[in-house]
Amino acid sequence: MQIRQLFDATSSTYSYLLWDNNTQQAALIDSVQEHVDRDSKLINELGLSLKYLLETHIHADHITGSGKLKKHHFSEVEIVIHKNSNSVCADILAEHGDTILLGDKTINMLHTPGHTNTDISYLIYGAVFTGDTLLIRGSGRTDFQSGNSETAYNSIINQLFTLHDDTIVYPGHDYNGFTVSSIGEEKILNPRLCKNKTSAEYIAIMDGMDLPKPKLIDQAVPSNMKCGL
Amino acid sequence: MQIRQLFDATSSTYSYLLWDNNTQQAALIDSVQEHVDRDSKLINELGLSLKYLLETHIHADHITGSGKLKKHHFSEVEIVIHKNSNSVCADILAEHGDTILLGDKTINMLHTPGHTNTDISYLIYGAVFTGDTLLIRGSGRTDFQSGNSETAYNSIINQLFTLHDDTIVYPGHDYNGFTVSSIGEEKILNPRLCKNKTSAEYIAIMDGMDLPKPKLIDQAVPSNMKCGL
Repeated sequence: MQIRQLFDATSSTYSYLLWDNNTQQAALIDSVQEHVDRDSKLINELGLSLKYLLETHIHADHITGSGKLKKHHFSEVEIVIHKNSNSVCADILAEHGDTILLGDKTINMLHTPGHTNTDISYLIYGAVFTGDTLLIRGSGRTDFQSGNSETAYNSIINQLFTLHDDTIVYPGHDYNGFTVSSIGEEKILNPRLCKNKTSAEYIAIMDGMDLPKPKLIDQAVPSNMKCGL
Repeated sequence: MQIRQLFDATSSTYSYLLWDNNTQQAALIDSVQEHVDRDSKLINELGLSLKYLLETHIHADHITGSGKLKKHHFSEVEIVIHKNSNSVCADILAEHGDTILLGDKTINMLHTPGHTNTDISYLIYGAVFTGDTLLIRGSGRTDFQSGNSETAYNSIINQLFTLHDDTIVYPGHDYNGFTVSSIGEEKILNPRLCKNKTSAEYIAIMDGMDLPKPKLIDQAVPSNMKCGL
């Protein structure tokens, strides 16, 4: 499996293009509407066959490119969003434990809610795409879109932190110039979770954050329910 | 060898932390002064022993963090810059063909001038850190600091493009959200170089660019001659 990390500087969002080297079947995780041209060009340049547009959740800070990519560039592609979204545009409303294939490579879907109630972490051998559930030295806020700090804690501790320590963590965002981490590294170094922090400690940390309302949320969430169209 | 890509959003500069898993010996390529605290913290968190601070060239768009990293954090580290720089702060004034070791892993230095006369590409098995000599779908400008379009063309064609097609290209910058490429991909898809472009065609492309003077050049170049101190 090949992985190509892509960045949107405006929202500090990472998108990821994955493909199977044998069949050239590809998936794009968390596309951004402003980069539909960039990403469709790259997919075509590399000779890939785009099978899936995967969303880690319904985003509040940017508008997905999935609708435009499907409508204008890749009509056969299937859009995957968690079933809790009740999305009207998803081709697959995914549940925990679902799998999809790129060639003979399996992508496993882990429902890891807490940032929202629609979070999916996508797991392939040796790598996990954690969306906003787990960030590098941080984690996604839990104060809107059915977010819940205790649920987020359980998703991280009982699902993500049970993966092999060497599993590469590809986050949905980074605001400090970091690109990747690993499960082992975050277990030891993530200040919100290290040193066996309890659920109560995590909830206190998350509740203590005084974060501004995301600028785009009122526009982005309803738009993303329709894949940005 | 482990590789960690780091980003400076202000100058769109990529820094790279490399380390040998067996000995934890590390090198940092193209540090940025504004991120000295971030990078020294990461190096310490990961339990690495920083042996080298490598510069791909004397930068005109940002100030290196090498001097501050050595002075305040890693007194034993050796700063590596090409000999053409006549840098007064380098511990090693490197030449084409020189090598350094991280544990038993060799880093080879290729003198790939043209963007400046001080360009080094750092080659480890399967990966090349090209600085500004080769960018993703682009290449570094050649209109200052002893830059020369014909020299740059020869560095790319006769050195970088003779590497194995699967060699991962880690550039010194990207302005479009791309993170990595490969030699094979750039041979086919880099618009300045693909389709067997001649030296004359490359020179015409580079001469035809109407680029503004880098904002920081008058400050950055003399500062970087002193490792930013």
